[in-house]
This record gives sequence, structure tokens and C-alpha cells, in this order.
Amino acid sequence: MSTTIVVNQDVRAELRARAAAFRQRMTAQGTLVVNLVSSPGAGKTSLLQQTALALRDRAKPAVLVGDLATERDAERLAPYLPVAQLTTGGACHLEIPLVETGFDRLNEPCPDLLFIENVGNLVCPASHDLGEHLRVVLLSTTEGDDKPGKYPKMFRTSHALVITKSDLLPHVPFRVDAAREDARKIQPELSLFVTSSYPAEGIAAWCDFLLETLVRLRTGVLPPERK
Amino acid sequence: MSTTIVVNQDVRAELRARAAAFRQRMTAQGTLVVNLVSSPGAGKTSLLQQTALALRDRAKPAVLVGDLATERDAERLAPYLPVAQLTTGGACHLEIPLVETGFDRLNEPCPDLLFIENVGNLVCPASHDLGEHLRVVLLSTTEGDDKPGKYPKMFRTSHALVITKSDLLPHVPFRVDAAREDARKIQPELSLFVTSSYPAEGIAAWCDFLLETLVRLRTGVLPPERK
Repeated sequence: MSTTIVVNQDVRAELRARAAAFRQRMTAQGTLVVNLVSSPGAGKTSLLQQTALALRDRAKPAVLVGDLATERDAERLAPYLPVAQLTTGGACHLEIPLVETGFDRLNEPCPDLLFIENVGNLVCPASHDLGEHLRVVLLSTTEGDDKPGKYPKMFRTSHALVITKSDLLPHVPFRVDAAREDARKIQPELSLFVTSSYPAEGIAAWCDFLLETLVRLRTGVLPPERK
Repeated sequence: MSTTIVVNQDVRAELRARAAAFRQRMTAQGTLVVNLVSSPGAGKTSLLQQTALALRDRAKPAVLVGDLATERDAERLAPYLPVAQLTTGGACHLEIPLVETGFDRLNEPCPDLLFIENVGNLVCPASHDLGEHLRVVLLSTTEGDDKPGKYPKMFRTSHALVITKSDLLPHVPFRVDAAREDARKIQPELSLFVTSSYPAEGIAAWCDFLLETLVRLRTGVLPPERK
């Protein structure tokens, strides 16, 4: 049995256009949009908690947090910064319509930094533009330094690599140099930060990078698009 | 602009039928098929190395190993057991045709245990039957004990949960009881194993579970299907 379905070829193009329009709107209001992507459990939520603490008095952050199910991450983040939970109902990545809706639900229409915590998945989110200025991939030291080459699209389309859980380096076979080299073979322009959230380490350099990028955005210099 | 595409509604049904046929064929030849799923870097390859060592002289294993890119995992596994690398070229999960092709390329037509190391992804592989008898989800102690509720389909469709990297328990905020409770809310029949690969711990109980399941398979008792 077969059936005929009319597919509008412009569906993907329309989503790309909506993402570009969202980015343009955020640029115009001076909000830097940062899409955080990683495997499940790499530490996106913990990094955001530490980032919000470190940015206090220097910038106003907000976050949209994506999950397949539960509001666990939003509950963890609510004490630190304005948050809206995006629940995908099982989908493996966020798309721009959910981001637009979440942004409208946020109790903060003009943050300096708008973080989007994507679904924990090192594959599918690489293919979806959420209107971000920066895509930042997290890699925890416990995942192994061989991951960039195994998940190349995510690293190629990112602006920065944040290595997380550096506190565990004495206990795991992870070489920061090897991960950096593997990642830069794929994306030579990748900025690199080595961080730990418990205890907080390396957070200042990461926050400086965000604030410098924000300043450049407000003087009209946007990060290059990565595809 | 729009275009008309004829979609064969039976594509998914055909894949399901092929997976069922593969399972039946493996059952008939006495091969237990085990689909290993997890986040990237949870330790599937290391667990397979330790499993192959522990099974030596007791059973003949083989493995099909899936990745988006590179043959890194196959290279790590080749010294331990017969292996065929399945490279998805960017796709976020394995499907049965790739498994069939890989099995034909294996230098071992009648293993006792056929492992399939899926792509590192806690979302998409949950929706694809690879003709396995057992689906086993790995969760590393470094990912956090809140993951089952956040990725419910993977845990609901699995037969066993292997907690990995128990050697790091003293260094991370992971409670085995909390993870077990969260997972069993979703799938009450989930078998649980707590393991470490460096150093090897808890591997014997996991291997006993595999061998007992193999014996039952050969007497006609298959694990229940999980959907």
C-alpha cells in the first residue's frame, strides 16, 4: 500500500529563515544567543549555574532549557537566572518554533545573554539553527578525548569547545591536548575552555569570552556563521 | 514551490519485519543478540573489551560497532573479538539493513553472543529494532542519576541497565539507588548491574546474566519484547 503526501520543500527553508530572523531580532536588541550542545550529562546545567553566578552584576542572563521529558533542569536553574523549560515530547533536538515560544514565555524580554540548553545529544542538534550567534559544544573529560572525530558535524559547526569536569582529570584517561588537536582538525577556529563546575574552575575565562563576544556583537561584529 | 513524493507506508513495517526475521534467524542458530545503547562516552567499548576477556573459554562473542565516522571503536575492539565497523555517515542511529550487511562481513558466522554497539545517542536508537533479543542501556556515574526520567523511551524499551564507571563514584554526585529507582519507575523489570571497566569490577555478574539468557534462548525461552 502506498500513499501520496505533498511535501512543501520550503519547510526547512522556512525554519532557516525564522532562525535568521530571530538572530537578527536578538542582534538588534543587543542580546547574544548561545546554543549549548553536548552529550547527556556533560554538565550543561551545572556550567550554566556557575556562569550565572560568575556573571552576576556584569550581565543579565536568561535560559531556555530543552528536554525530552521532565522539568528537572529548569528546576535546577530557576534559583540562578530567568528560565523557561522547552519539553520536546520525545524529539531528539530543539527547533526554532519552540525557541520562539519559550522566549515569549520568559520573564525577561531583554537579557544580555540568552542561553539555549539543547537536548543532550551530540548528533541531531548539529543540524538545526536555533537563531544563535554562538554554538558551544561541551565535552566532559569522562567521555574520552576521541569524541570530536567521531561526532564531526557538531564540532565543525561550533564556535567554542568547553571541556567540562576538569576536576576528574586525575581519575580518567583524558588528554586535553589530544581532544584539542582532534577538534581543531575538524574546526581550526574553535575557541577552547577547560572548566570544572564542582569546584568552579576556568569559569572566568569562559565568561570573559562571552562578554567580549557580547561587546563585539553590540558594535556590529557578529561571530562567523558555521555550517 | 512544492513537490510530490510517493511514500511507501510499509517502509517502517518492512524494517520491522526484517528485524524480526534477523532475530528469528539468530534464535535458530543459537546466537544471542545484544544491542548496547548509551550516551557518547558512557563506556560501551570498554565494557565490551572487559566482557570479551571475561567470557573467554566460556562463550564466543562477536561485535558490530556503529559510529557516525571513524573506525576508532573497531580498532579498539579488534584485539578482543571478531568485529565489523558500521559507519552511518552521519546518521544518529543504526538500522537493520546496516546490521545485516555488517553481520555478513563478520569473520564469525555463528557467535554465541552478537553484540551491536550502537551510535552514542540516548534518544534516536530507542526507536529502531535491530533484531536484538536484549537491549541494554549503559549509564555512566558521571552523567548523573537523573537521566532515566529525562530519556524515558530508552529506559522503557531496555531489558537491562548497566551502570558504568563505578570507580568514579567517590568523585561524583551519583546515587546508585536514585538511578535505580528512577529507571524502575519507567521499566519495573529492568535488570541492574553496577560495573567499572578500569579496574574491572562487576563484570562477572553481567557476564553471568548474558550466559543465563543465552541458555534460556537455546531452550526456547526468549526475553520479552519491550516497546
